[in-house]
Amino acid sequence: MKLLEQKIMAEGKVYPGDVLKVSSFLNHKLDVDFLCQVGEEFYQLFKDCDVNKILTIEASGIGVACLTAHFFHCPVLFAKKAKTTNLSDNVYSAKAHSYTHNTDSIIRVDKDYLAASDRVLILDDFLANGAALTALIELCNQAGATVVGCGAVIEKVYQNGGNRLRAKGIRVESLARIASMSPEDGIKFC
Amino acid sequence: MKLLEQKIMAEGKVYPGDVLKVSSFLNHKLDVDFLCQVGEEFYQLFKDCDVNKILTIEASGIGVACLTAHFFHCPVLFAKKAKTTNLSDNVYSAKAHSYTHNTDSIIRVDKDYLAASDRVLILDDFLANGAALTALIELCNQAGATVVGCGAVIEKVYQNGGNRLRAKGIRVESLARIASMSPEDGIKFC
Repeated sequence: MKLLEQKIMAEGKVYPGDVLKVSSFLNHKLDVDFLCQVGEEFYQLFKDCDVNKILTIEASGIGVACLTAHFFHCPVLFAKKAKTTNLSDNVYSAKAHSYTHNTDSIIRVDKDYLAASDRVLILDDFLANGAALTALIELCNQAGATVVGCGAVIEKVYQNGGNRLRAKGIRVESLARIASMSPEDGIKFC
Repeated sequence: MKLLEQKIMAEGKVYPGDVLKVSSFLNHKLDVDFLCQVGEEFYQLFKDCDVNKILTIEASGIGVACLTAHFFHCPVLFAKKAKTTNLSDNVYSAKAHSYTHNTDSIIRVDKDYLAASDRVLILDDFLANGAALTALIELCNQAGATVVGCGAVIEKVYQNGGNRLRAKGIRVESLARIASMSPEDGIKFC
């Protein structure tokens, strides 16, 4: 998505430690009009897949998921990272390993909201090593739901998470594909 | 908002400990088509206020904020509860006291994204004792931004947080106003 690459070049900042800061439009301040165009792009990619639910993970996936679901006219379900008073013990859960922080976290969805009849599009803001998407796919597998595919706004292709999922036969679409990045050399797209 | 009251009556569940579970449409599974109608209602209420930014708090405020911002054609900024690698030290921060858990948490927004020239609509899913809204107002005050008002999808009026804010001269609009609720007697609206 050319417009997204231009946005990343204009507003994104690369910091040491493989950090791409795009919090001016994607994961802190949300450029809602722009994210509507991102949502329409995901809609064009998956509109023939009979998607009836979009699954994402709190917090930064929620904006993109909602503005995409708006085109599908389907609900969003977001996996929770913490046990809250509003979440019962009646959950599907999966472990997501963070390579950045070297920690495991458990993500959960209420069993009432994910069913074997669901055809799920999984969305997230970033795809790097694929830990979050893998855990979200695992939740769908536990429910017996069909994963029609995964979408990421930005893929760090060099971290290989996306290609590992594709090798398993999962459809993965990302709208900006970063081949390499560093504070010195900037961002190179595939 | 009659449609919202009907939705709460049809899908909401009251549990001991003053818990209203509306996770089938508001804060776990998000009924995006319905929340678009909620967003349009907020737009009708605040459309003459020159809103140029919507401020909310992760995670459950993000969906409603995005689907409201879509009508205003303005960005959303969501306050973060945790320090992340993407958030610098260049932040406004405020303490939010949780009466439910009797804990304090610090919420933060990057100073780059909240300015004295901003006219901010603050939105959240629930308004009970008003701790979250009070902390979000404090962030705006630190930035010198104008708070045009606050909107909550559901207000627990009996907890008085909304009325305390109104007594300070802040405009607070809620779309469903609960006068009382209990597992035995169900939900009574104002």
